[in-house]
Amino acid sequence: MALIVMKFGGTSMAGIERIRGVAARVRREVEAGNQVAVVVSAMAGETDRLVGFCREASPLADPAEYDVVVATGEQVTSGLLAIVLQSMGLATRSWLGWQLPIDTSDAHGKARIQDMETKALLESLQGGTVAVIPGFQGLSPAGRVTTLGRGGSDTSAVAVAAALKADRCDIYTDVEGVFTTDPRIVPRARKLAKITYEEMLELASVGAKVLQTRSVELAMKEKVRIQVLSSFSDEPGTLVVDEDEVVEQELIAGVAYDRNEAKVTIVAVPDKPGVVADIFGPLADANINVDMIVQNIASTNKTTDVTFTVPRTELSQARSVLESNAERIGYERLVTDDSVVKVSVVGVGMKSHAGVAVTMFRALADRGINVLAITTSEIKVSVLISEEYLELAVRVLHTAYGLDAAA
Amino acid sequence: MALIVMKFGGTSMAGIERIRGVAARVRREVEAGNQVAVVVSAMAGETDRLVGFCREASPLADPAEYDVVVATGEQVTSGLLAIVLQSMGLATRSWLGWQLPIDTSDAHGKARIQDMETKALLESLQGGTVAVIPGFQGLSPAGRVTTLGRGGSDTSAVAVAAALKADRCDIYTDVEGVFTTDPRIVPRARKLAKITYEEMLELASVGAKVLQTRSVELAMKEKVRIQVLSSFSDEPGTLVVDEDEVVEQELIAGVAYDRNEAKVTIVAVPDKPGVVADIFGPLADANINVDMIVQNIASTNKTTDVTFTVPRTELSQARSVLESNAERIGYERLVTDDSVVKVSVVGVGMKSHAGVAVTMFRALADRGINVLAITTSEIKVSVLISEEYLELAVRVLHTAYGLDAAA
Repeated sequence: MALIVMKFGGTSMAGIERIRGVAARVRREVEAGNQVAVVVSAMAGETDRLVGFCREASPLADPAEYDVVVATGEQVTSGLLAIVLQSMGLATRSWLGWQLPIDTSDAHGKARIQDMETKALLESLQGGTVAVIPGFQGLSPAGRVTTLGRGGSDTSAVAVAAALKADRCDIYTDVEGVFTTDPRIVPRARKLAKITYEEMLELASVGAKVLQTRSVELAMKEKVRIQVLSSFSDEPGTLVVDEDEVVEQELIAGVAYDRNEAKVTIVAVPDKPGVVADIFGPLADANINVDMIVQNIASTNKTTDVTFTVPRTELSQARSVLESNAERIGYERLVTDDSVVKVSVVGVGMKSHAGVAVTMFRALADRGINVLAITTSEIKVSVLISEEYLELAVRVLHTAYGLDAAA
Repeated sequence: MALIVMKFGGTSMAGIERIRGVAARVRREVEAGNQVAVVVSAMAGETDRLVGFCREASPLADPAEYDVVVATGEQVTSGLLAIVLQSMGLATRSWLGWQLPIDTSDAHGKARIQDMETKALLESLQGGTVAVIPGFQGLSPAGRVTTLGRGGSDTSAVAVAAALKADRCDIYTDVEGVFTTDPRIVPRARKLAKITYEEMLELASVGAKVLQTRSVELAMKEKVRIQVLSSFSDEPGTLVVDEDEVVEQELIAGVAYDRNEAKVTIVAVPDKPGVVADIFGPLADANINVDMIVQNIASTNKTTDVTFTVPRTELSQARSVLESNAERIGYERLVTDDSVVKVSVVGVGMKSHAGVAVTMFRALADRGINVLAITTSEIKVSVLISEEYLELAVRVLHTAYGLDAAA
């Protein structure tokens, strides 16, 4: 007998018919002799509806009251799933965030889980009762409703699994698992049987939206074994586990991309100490995330060009910050380009293998794809390229690292 | 400075624009120097939507989980009203049922308020913060969400007013107050400035759906002064108060009617002891409300006819109960009629005046309206008549008791 946490996303909970499908999966685990705690999202679209109400009420809605409103979406689906499970003859009860409670920080709208009381919950599970727990919500030190931020239900599920010392945390979503790359771009992309936490984090941060980043960080810290699988098929999914568990490590786990990139070049900046701080200080103050940075020495007259990327959604803000600091920085002009993308290869195998980046650059060069900037981490190499090459680059790299499925 | 409880119904809370209207009324009370606690309903239609989900999930939904689902409607409007009030510069916070808490019985779906903790709430009000409290919900002894049953928000408002010893409980609705009768039938119906609790109870129970019956019972018990008034006008409403406060007592406060009536006649029942128990026992066991009862002695052979009314919605159930007990009762046949209505005149002045019923019977007889059954209480006379005479009877009685407004 195992203790299993199952988490279902908004698409899986969208309407009573889908909730019946979820209940059938829960019943299967119970009938296999497992103790089951289910963490649920709101019905797809419901959180947007509630957020819309709050914005309409006031663009500067009090986060504490915003949380009162938006936390209701998961409360509704928790009660409904409990009702359906009971109608199938399974002893079930819902446990709201404040009932357990799930203690969080008081950062309303983006609270962090700090602790969870599990005594009553464990007793109930051991008595054979299925627990249904709304994701995304908790209780602040002041006794008020908090929410964890968008996608927070994944984090709730991992936190519940950690607190219960669950044997497994199955995260049901609308994809069948984690793929070597986006199957819409590369039809021969393969589903990975296993992936390490670190790889998952790098893939998540470069735009493969399968799991919320915080949930993976928490799983890594608490050693929670996650399985990502589909609500709409019976195929096994992808296990997200510790590096030790991945026996046959492939060099590269996957190729990811991110379209939310824009390039800024500051032309002819005086090449003197402190100028970089003059550029990036004001951007940091404005909460703009600067990613890749390249500095070119200009040939003559003691100036340099500085190139970096910002999220495309923050480009216009970045421009105005730089323009209002133009005098202090002393540059000649600004050039921006929002038709760039970042393509990354990720894999823990990289740690012990040199030459990974070289393979990448050579494969891209062979197709005439110009690399505009580069960043690397221990298990990732990212390049910035022109957006028109996105699909070609992903396909070329997927083949170059031997990731294509057998035809 | 006064402490005022304001309650707004679903029509007043239907959408952000209407909530802004509610907020403007709250601000007016605050600017007049009052401490204000606001009790809110869910947006019109929302509770039906949530109940619909529960029924679709299972016709026999667990009431405890049903409450988890349906209580969210008021949670949403509480948060939204708090946001709007804050955006107007008023210090405001929401207090959910479990946060105060409002302690109720554990009768999920129809819980009764038993106690309310007000220390933190009073401190907050005294500090100048407006309180927004979701109606309809509370906390069971087991620490679970309860709801009070449909219309329960009126009861929540009165309970909050009682616990806070509020100076006034203003119940904003979509009518301008309590009228002498239905203005759709009698255009010259008048809005009453004051009405006693007892009159309000009798009017509510005979179909004038202004306030929920339980809320009036509670107000009477706790001596809470209620004002019923419209969210959509600035006219003063109707005060519902103790009999002592109504100085100029009119003989009759109003004429009410109820279409949810059906008549059952059991023909030729043996006229022997115990037969009435044989008839009404099984109906009571089936939870069918029997109202007016008339027993006629048949001329010969020791039989009698028994006539009574049941809610029209329960007529077919009543029929089948009686048919399955036909042998034990031993009647000749059943005759039912669902085209009858009950018309009532209500007024505390009746206590000290004889002849009220006579006026009624005479006025109806003058128009050739046949009275099928009669019931009376200390402050009410009700007659059962054929449905076709409903409007005529109401108009005739309204005039006969001098209730018509000056032309």
